[in-house]
Amino acid sequence: MEQGTIDYLINTVGSDFVITNSEQKLSYMYDEIEHNVRPKVNMDSIVVKPLNSKEISEIVKYAGENKIPIVVHGGGTGLCGGVSPIKESIVISMERMNKIVEIDEKNMMAVVEAGVTLAQLIEELEKHSGICFPVHPGDEGAQMGGMVATNAGGARAVKHGIMRNHIKGIEVVLPNGEILNLGGKLLKDNTGYNLLQLIMGSEGTLAIITKITFRLYPEDKFTASIVLAFENISDASNAVLEIMKNGVAPLAVEYQDRYLNVKSAEILGLHWPLDKGMADLLIILSEKSEEALYASCQIINNVCKKYNASKAVFAGTKKEQAEMLAIRSGSYEVIKENIAYSFDMAVPAGYMPDFLNDLWKLVDSYGTKSYITAHLADGNVHNDIYMVDGKNPEYLEELKMKMYKLCFKYGGTLTGEHGIGKLRIRDLTFQKSKAEIELMKSIKRVFDPNNILNPGTVLEM
Amino acid sequence: MEQGTIDYLINTVGSDFVITNSEQKLSYMYDEIEHNVRPKVNMDSIVVKPLNSKEISEIVKYAGENKIPIVVHGGGTGLCGGVSPIKESIVISMERMNKIVEIDEKNMMAVVEAGVTLAQLIEELEKHSGICFPVHPGDEGAQMGGMVATNAGGARAVKHGIMRNHIKGIEVVLPNGEILNLGGKLLKDNTGYNLLQLIMGSEGTLAIITKITFRLYPEDKFTASIVLAFENISDASNAVLEIMKNGVAPLAVEYQDRYLNVKSAEILGLHWPLDKGMADLLIILSEKSEEALYASCQIINNVCKKYNASKAVFAGTKKEQAEMLAIRSGSYEVIKENIAYSFDMAVPAGYMPDFLNDLWKLVDSYGTKSYITAHLADGNVHNDIYMVDGKNPEYLEELKMKMYKLCFKYGGTLTGEHGIGKLRIRDLTFQKSKAEIELMKSIKRVFDPNNILNPGTVLEM
Repeated sequence: MEQGTIDYLINTVGSDFVITNSEQKLSYMYDEIEHNVRPKVNMDSIVVKPLNSKEISEIVKYAGENKIPIVVHGGGTGLCGGVSPIKESIVISMERMNKIVEIDEKNMMAVVEAGVTLAQLIEELEKHSGICFPVHPGDEGAQMGGMVATNAGGARAVKHGIMRNHIKGIEVVLPNGEILNLGGKLLKDNTGYNLLQLIMGSEGTLAIITKITFRLYPEDKFTASIVLAFENISDASNAVLEIMKNGVAPLAVEYQDRYLNVKSAEILGLHWPLDKGMADLLIILSEKSEEALYASCQIINNVCKKYNASKAVFAGTKKEQAEMLAIRSGSYEVIKENIAYSFDMAVPAGYMPDFLNDLWKLVDSYGTKSYITAHLADGNVHNDIYMVDGKNPEYLEELKMKMYKLCFKYGGTLTGEHGIGKLRIRDLTFQKSKAEIELMKSIKRVFDPNNILNPGTVLEM
Repeated sequence: MEQGTIDYLINTVGSDFVITNSEQKLSYMYDEIEHNVRPKVNMDSIVVKPLNSKEISEIVKYAGENKIPIVVHGGGTGLCGGVSPIKESIVISMERMNKIVEIDEKNMMAVVEAGVTLAQLIEELEKHSGICFPVHPGDEGAQMGGMVATNAGGARAVKHGIMRNHIKGIEVVLPNGEILNLGGKLLKDNTGYNLLQLIMGSEGTLAIITKITFRLYPEDKFTASIVLAFENISDASNAVLEIMKNGVAPLAVEYQDRYLNVKSAEILGLHWPLDKGMADLLIILSEKSEEALYASCQIINNVCKKYNASKAVFAGTKKEQAEMLAIRSGSYEVIKENIAYSFDMAVPAGYMPDFLNDLWKLVDSYGTKSYITAHLADGNVHNDIYMVDGKNPEYLEELKMKMYKLCFKYGGTLTGEHGIGKLRIRDLTFQKSKAEIELMKSIKRVFDPNNILNPGTVLEM
């Protein structure tokens, strides 16, 4: 990075908060994307840690005048390389913008700076009894700003939906440096085009999110986790459809191939309680009353029996529940080092049994495996193509395209929750029409005519 | 309208479906906006009734080439003049595009053409036991396309949220005539900028919505309506906040000044059951079980006693519930003829007691009244400035601005659900920054460079 820019940044945020040292910079260059598909980053990039929107505004103005790309780095928990600077960029780390501005119990809204992590928010909410924020993308190191920028989902989307449903206001810095407030503590607001909804999920390419206002909810008092073993994934997914149809709204419905659960438990030094069958379902319930919890359990039990679930384990204590969730979440560790390409496809939930069946056959025809973790009730599947002898298999691109085509055949999408980032820019063109991509590009030009915000993410301009 | 255009339209949709007769055209020129604030329409406009997206695409292409404005007419149940053609326009009535394409129980999704009315949808869903679509803006003559275009709310938004939360896919005709499909039967989809969310609420100015895919839900089996009388609106709104805080999620929480309920009942030949106090609350509950219904009723009862509710009437039968709702909805008839200006302000829900108190004082200082109907739990208020001796009062603009300023003081918005239409274009500039309006205008130009779609709605271009 040019010395003039370094000087300007030091002058703006203070020398303690500008990182030029390569080793120190490294942890800001990537998110949690698999090593094998990491974007090539430009290490001449510089990292700055502004304290507030005003400082960001000044940095953005400078960057605009000098046509220097800007990449915002949140918690770095993304999985598609969205935070990697592929050009020589100013990387803005939001870590110092970590103030919880307000927990407003009167309006059941919170206002936080974008750098507040999910862990921090949860800790703060524990001081206010009986109030919760429901979205949980798994890694609590995620920052709220990043969760808005990527419209995060996660396991609890079954009952509570995704970020989009809960965010009511944002403060953003536009690419021209202007600070703009959109929405507020309002439950209803129909004043013109909803720019808030447009910016949500735009992955740092339209504006820099600096502050967030979102809904809080009364916490359900009664929870339980149930783990069920099915013969196969078809039975498991049909059971889930019928459970939902019966009016049960679980907090989460997590499917995982037995192999992943057993291996993950091994790594964690825990015991996975199921052995019969090969397809495991973890259902987490949260209800307002014990009666409601019991009624939901009854329905689940009856439906799962019908689909030949061979064993159900109820986890009542917090410790048991946490262990099961840890095993589920730990499965990534089992396969992480061996991933050649990682998927986040989603199909209409009712098509899951057929889609997964076809997916299994397709993978099998290549003489390989592709273990499945799925938010089954949402139709969202995580699977992978693995490396062979530490290298990408020859069939990688071919199998990938066949998987996508299968997904599109079922009316699916190539990313249900992880987003496009730098990983799926080309993939996007397989799914979207030219007209839609052209509209997206034109909107990008409206917000960011110099293409300085996170170039090479979502769209190739 | 020029003969060439008339001929083209007759050629495209057939002579039976082109209306040139002034008397027949009249019912397509307005929505339900009060007579006093009706926009001035251009009666040289022509009405066409296309059968499908392809016909609409052809009409739009022709209109684009000839720079003729297009206004889409749905159910005509709007309240801000959105459907009125203020320039010589082609008015596209969606009434023939009324096919329910699919009730997909497997995916719990419905696909309908944009001209399907809410009444028609409800009737169809009754054939599929236990399935419902929750949004209900009051007038069942509303078409689904219009409900998407305006991001409709209504009484049931308390529990189920607004249209935006439930719509998963749309087919639109762009101003260049291209037919575009956005989203699908997907619960999660993070592929690029969410144009679906941008078009929702854009009031027919960005694209013509022709088909809609939306979620269906298992219907709650147990319902009850409770009517409560409070001394004043402050007590009523504080009670509502506490009820919600206690985890009760009513289907609807409708407030109405006693005067409106009594007069509305009179007009309908019904009896309003409350007499003590002056502030009436109608709470509608829907729950999965009788126990849950009873538990919610208990909480409501306890909280309302604390806030001195003097009488509670439980309506258990469908007939009783329908009567109460009819009286609530009929209140518009009481004041309709006398309205000089009609409001749809919303403030953060927790500020409602203070806001309503200040609003009452403000209105009182002008020696007038402004009866209130409110979706209390959503912070959404409907009130009016009345005519004096059949004319707009001198203080109209002054009082209106003071009401808005009061609303903004509480972090409010000038329209919670009704939208901007042609009624509030100037008002929008009081609330929104120049930067935000400029972004909206630029987005409008991206979609509709010739400004042919519903000119004079939302934005003055």
